[in-house]
Amino acid sequence: MKNYISLADIDNLEDLISEAIQLKKNNNAATLGKGKTLGMLFFNPSLRTRLSTEKAGRLLGMDVMVMNADKDGWALEFEDGAVMDSNKAEHIQEAAGVLSQYCDIIAVRAFPELKDREKDEMELVINSFKKYATVPVVNLESATGHPLQALTDAITISELKKSKNPKVVLTWAPHPKALPQSVPNSFAEFIQKTDAELVIANPEGYDLNPKITGNIKIYHNQEEALKDADFVYVKNWSSYENYGNKPDVSENWTFNGDKLKMTNNAKVMHCLPVRRNVVIADEVLDSEHSVVLQQANNRTFAAQAVLKRLLESL
Amino acid sequence: MKNYISLADIDNLEDLISEAIQLKKNNNAATLGKGKTLGMLFFNPSLRTRLSTEKAGRLLGMDVMVMNADKDGWALEFEDGAVMDSNKAEHIQEAAGVLSQYCDIIAVRAFPELKDREKDEMELVINSFKKYATVPVVNLESATGHPLQALTDAITISELKKSKNPKVVLTWAPHPKALPQSVPNSFAEFIQKTDAELVIANPEGYDLNPKITGNIKIYHNQEEALKDADFVYVKNWSSYENYGNKPDVSENWTFNGDKLKMTNNAKVMHCLPVRRNVVIADEVLDSEHSVVLQQANNRTFAAQAVLKRLLESL
Amino acid sequence: MKNYISLADIDNLEDLISEAIQLKKNNNAATLGKGKTLGMLFFNPSLRTRLSTEKAGRLLGMDVMVMNADKDGWALEFEDGAVMDSNKAEHIQEAAGVLSQYCDIIAVRAFPELKDREKDEMELVINSFKKYATVPVVNLESATGHPLQALTDAITISELKKSKNPKVVLTWAPHPKALPQSVPNSFAEFIQKTDAELVIANPEGYDLNPKITGNIKIYHNQEEALKDADFVYVKNWSSYENYGNKPDVSENWTFNGDKLKMTNNAKVMHCLPVRRNVVIADEVLDSEHSVVLQQANNRTFAAQAVLKRLLESL
Repeated sequence: MKNYISLADIDNLEDLISEAIQLKKNNNAATLGKGKTLGMLFFNPSLRTRLSTEKAGRLLGMDVMVMNADKDGWALEFEDGAVMDSNKAEHIQEAAGVLSQYCDIIAVRAFPELKDREKDEMELVINSFKKYATVPVVNLESATGHPLQALTDAITISELKKSKNPKVVLTWAPHPKALPQSVPNSFAEFIQKTDAELVIANPEGYDLNPKITGNIKIYHNQEEALKDADFVYVKNWSSYENYGNKPDVSENWTFNGDKLKMTNNAKVMHCLPVRRNVVIADEVLDSEHSVVLQQANNRTFAAQAVLKRLLESL
Repeated sequence: MKNYISLADIDNLEDLISEAIQLKKNNNAATLGKGKTLGMLFFNPSLRTRLSTEKAGRLLGMDVMVMNADKDGWALEFEDGAVMDSNKAEHIQEAAGVLSQYCDIIAVRAFPELKDREKDEMELVINSFKKYATVPVVNLESATGHPLQALTDAITISELKKSKNPKVVLTWAPHPKALPQSVPNSFAEFIQKTDAELVIANPEGYDLNPKITGNIKIYHNQEEALKDADFVYVKNWSSYENYGNKPDVSENWTFNGDKLKMTNNAKVMHCLPVRRNVVIADEVLDSEHSVVLQQANNRTFAAQAVLKRLLESL
Repeated sequence: MKNYISLADIDNLEDLISEAIQLKKNNNAATLGKGKTLGMLFFNPSLRTRLSTEKAGRLLGMDVMVMNADKDGWALEFEDGAVMDSNKAEHIQEAAGVLSQYCDIIAVRAFPELKDREKDEMELVINSFKKYATVPVVNLESATGHPLQALTDAITISELKKSKNPKVVLTWAPHPKALPQSVPNSFAEFIQKTDAELVIANPEGYDLNPKITGNIKIYHNQEEALKDADFVYVKNWSSYENYGNKPDVSENWTFNGDKLKMTNNAKVMHCLPVRRNVVIADEVLDSEHSVVLQQANNRTFAAQAVLKRLLESL
């Protein structure tokens, strides 16, 4: 594995899932990263990603250096050819080049602005790191994808599924803020590659990028979609069509106990942080159906499996 | 030891003090924490607590992950049943649950708001971590207590005392800001459990919570209290009665050289940071009577003794 | 070596350069710092210094604790005798004393205010740490000097020079902000101590402190200075004479391809971060003449050599 920026970087998803489950049972690579340094750069807040990836690096014996990109360092310019006479002190070309001197793997988190769809889809930050870094780059959530979360989710479904082809429903839920599409995008991409049967439920106006959802059946009626679900992945996202906005939704899409009853005794998933009683009701999160903490736990092993592959390719 | 949230978590204070003094002389537990992770979460600034606890963890062989809670992560909701549709992105239930997946011990600093006494006394932050974490929780200073500081202070008195029952005076001092009662609360609680004879001096209107001070003699005349003192612990706190406010004080309570002369050649203590020439005069801090740096040094060994006990109980 | 605050702390610069180059080839001191702690305190942003010094500490086996001074901790008072009744919570005397309890070496970054030349030249922050710390202090860039950068630059010139006495030109370049003189000051001091022939080019009104430049020839005509240059060090700085200001400059001092042609096929250096197409043109930075990444890489080994000397003196 050369980088871990999107699904395309994975040769064989099932193998990677198996490796993560294996590492969770038995850390057989505790010294693989000895003398190697993982550099983590955050342009946005993080709890799970920050701590689980740091922990994954240490489980492999790596040193880990963490930086809040703009707060601890310098504001970065990403445009090639820019005349840097305003507020950006350093060009990504130097920043990535320099980090490549100090780190053996660079991991970066950079959210979208949700203002200009074309710009967000260019994935300027993560792609600039890929372009200018001379070491592997890991996506800790970018403008349009969150492949470490999606790998975690695939691992969790693999651990919990009772049939070869479980029905997985990715359902939209309300949220007070306009959120990125990164998590549902990557979830849709990854789960399509597994044996699960994936469908998506969201209100009209909230269809995800059709290039990503491809042949996945999309329901605008949540109840219909939930029927026979073995797994329900609840998540808010802002509109792709009306980019970055939050068109009004008249129905109640909060995932609560009544909706749970419509499923096949489903496991309920969320990437966290979750707004209780807005996205998912307490009665669901506090029930044995919720596997959100198991997902969060698997973040460590997803990251460990990815870092292991990258270390092996150095 | 299951948690270290207050004095009540300590079986035998004298044993714990002895253990810390022993670890200071000889670190006989340098590998006890190998493969274990200490997670430290700060809702407020910290210098001594941050660095000494991080160091203590490393002296035990632990990995340490440090986060500024709100700045690096997500704003947390602490109210059970909340409909999270405003500015809080994550509920403590998930945050504590998730941290428990990545950390073997969680340490938390969260100051009081000093607006609503009942609310502060509920100790919502630290108690919510205790409620929802599945690993031990350490108090790095909470709304009403600072037990790592109090343990440090008890260790320092134990090291320096020349008689079995030294007279210890906890005296209020002025300060430009309204400060928590956490440090004097815990100091009063801990020192009462030792052989020392503790009295408190503070202006009228500044009596600490009577449930904490119990039978301790409280002087409103500083000079009277200082007579025969072997140790003077100087500290500002805001009013408990007129909660969180700073009623005017007409006398000069700054601890200076003249006041030192009233004591029995006392050692002068402060938890730091100290406002020079407001709380304690330069002439005292710069004299051999001041033991504030020895106290700060003992923070490491207090934390190490506590973490050692928690690791042994895992 | 007792501290690393300025050139004066180095017994023999050539020896230190050799040691760094040796460590770069072969890290023969990977356990020298075992059980020792490096504390790094930042009053200002940092990318290279932060990560390279942290890495250098780890390459020596040290534990490293990093703090953003004012954001993570307490606002510091540096004036002796101050009555601390305003916004400064802790005096440097305690802060440095306390850090000396937890750390075996303290490293500090503190930029100048560029308002009052005499005040900046007092180097209050770094000198106060030196005064009150009981362990070695390392300058991570202070008000008037950046000796770790200068050591890096001397190492890089030593690695790349093709003759015993290369001609080195330190040339001013434009910048939208008023920048410190720390980097050019230390560069001038250090390179004067080597076999290189150093000259400086800057517009009128931008002469550096004459006590530092001493007998170095200063050109106000950039083209004249660049003739026969083997190395060109490009850097902006604000006026020393008209302290901290940016008098207008009518000529174009941006270092571009045409200026490169005036040199002896020179290597082009910059400490980074560099404003592309303002300080140095893309055509130069993207050419094989640029050695800015090699310089950045050498930051690690410069820091490692310095920390090694300090550890050996403990």
